[in-house]
Amino acid sequence: MSSIKVVTAAMVAIGDELLSGRTKDKNIGHLADMMTMVGIDLKEVRIVADDEAAIVEAINAVRSRYDYVFTSGGIGPTHDDITADAVSRAFGVECIYESEAMALLGAMYERRNMEFTDARKRMARMPLGARHIPNPVSTAPGFAIGNVHVMAGVPQVFQAMLDALLPGLNVGSPLLSRTVRSPFGEGDIGSPLTEVQKNHPETSIGSYPKFDGKTFSTDIVVRARDPEALAAAEADVQAMIQAIADARAKG
Amino acid sequence: MSSIKVVTAAMVAIGDELLSGRTKDKNIGHLADMMTMVGIDLKEVRIVADDEAAIVEAINAVRSRYDYVFTSGGIGPTHDDITADAVSRAFGVECIYESEAMALLGAMYERRNMEFTDARKRMARMPLGARHIPNPVSTAPGFAIGNVHVMAGVPQVFQAMLDALLPGLNVGSPLLSRTVRSPFGEGDIGSPLTEVQKNHPETSIGSYPKFDGKTFSTDIVVRARDPEALAAAEADVQAMIQAIADARAKG
Repeated sequence: MSSIKVVTAAMVAIGDELLSGRTKDKNIGHLADMMTMVGIDLKEVRIVADDEAAIVEAINAVRSRYDYVFTSGGIGPTHDDITADAVSRAFGVECIYESEAMALLGAMYERRNMEFTDARKRMARMPLGARHIPNPVSTAPGFAIGNVHVMAGVPQVFQAMLDALLPGLNVGSPLLSRTVRSPFGEGDIGSPLTEVQKNHPETSIGSYPKFDGKTFSTDIVVRARDPEALAAAEADVQAMIQAIADARAKG
Repeated sequence: MSSIKVVTAAMVAIGDELLSGRTKDKNIGHLADMMTMVGIDLKEVRIVADDEAAIVEAINAVRSRYDYVFTSGGIGPTHDDITADAVSRAFGVECIYESEAMALLGAMYERRNMEFTDARKRMARMPLGARHIPNPVSTAPGFAIGNVHVMAGVPQVFQAMLDALLPGLNVGSPLLSRTVRSPFGEGDIGSPLTEVQKNHPETSIGSYPKFDGKTFSTDIVVRARDPEALAAAEADVQAMIQAIADARAKG
């Protein structure tokens, strides 16, 4: 068995609109996919309102516990965009109009012959000492301080910022997975599957019911970082399903 | 101004599959819509893994802080369905095979000529003293203890359980909202909108950028519990957009 490295992350999705139902979040699922792909374990997600105290509490709760924190939302130019202030407060540093971001934005608005309003200048605010996260879509950068990475809520911009970050992340051994489709519901497979899990402690076996409006079937997902452990558990899951089918055919 | 009543809620969505990206959650957005409709403020959502300590911590963090807690996931028949155990531990009570749930499930499997396996019996487990939440889709009940309401992760079942709960909830004054569409981006409206928000402190004005691949526009959402306050703020937002349009036409 090769050496296994585990890297963890949490997400804080920020915005009243996610909690009112007005906007259906798309960033959590995208981050989850990307983390799984590169080999980082997303352990926890919190959705909080545009409320400074709530953002500070969530950021501080997760940043000491996981290797990486990713946030979405609240970095635009309007009064309800308070993520830069909240993250500054969480780290106990000043929130400044960062000079490089001011230059980038100023030049962009000049090119487009648009006024660089006080509202737009808000998009250059970040905690003192933060690094930029480039924004190829609409210029206004995200930022990172410590292990916290602050990105936009608009999915196109969130995705572009994450793409820019991924190559620089310290990643773990990818968690491998295999899905075995079971025509039987969880009630039929639950007991034997518990045995399979006990026999393969180095894997994590999940069971996900699917309901088509009439009957339940199950997707069984075997996860492991070691390919041999994965293959052995997958084989036992397949044998288990075959055994149930055989018993029914006889019965 | 009529008397305003505020009722709050949090959600805990439980499941490894939500954090791996395998399943894209649909229950958070649905709960958010329903809470807004009935007049309950959803203040916070946490997504946690199928991990007893993580579930217990999340439940205990939110149940003392909000009027209602709703959970999704982890109440099926397999080894990774541990929500009943975790909620029991959070409340410090025994997790039992509840007799009425055993009778319901036993009768259902007998009608369908199916074996009531040990795995299926797991679905009758709940904290001692919990009330049932009926499940018209697939019989196995959810449950409520204190202010915590435990529902299934399969969206059809989650929605049916929530429908059963809604009429019995103690609801607040509904939060009313109006959306004003602005053809201008947040950078153009940010400064004047801050003024509108200052002049209408009894409303909450949110600003949501939309990006069509080329330009940004903005949905401005005014929220209030008092209809007159809502109408006054909405009128000022519309006047603000007209003023920007007029200035451009002149300019």
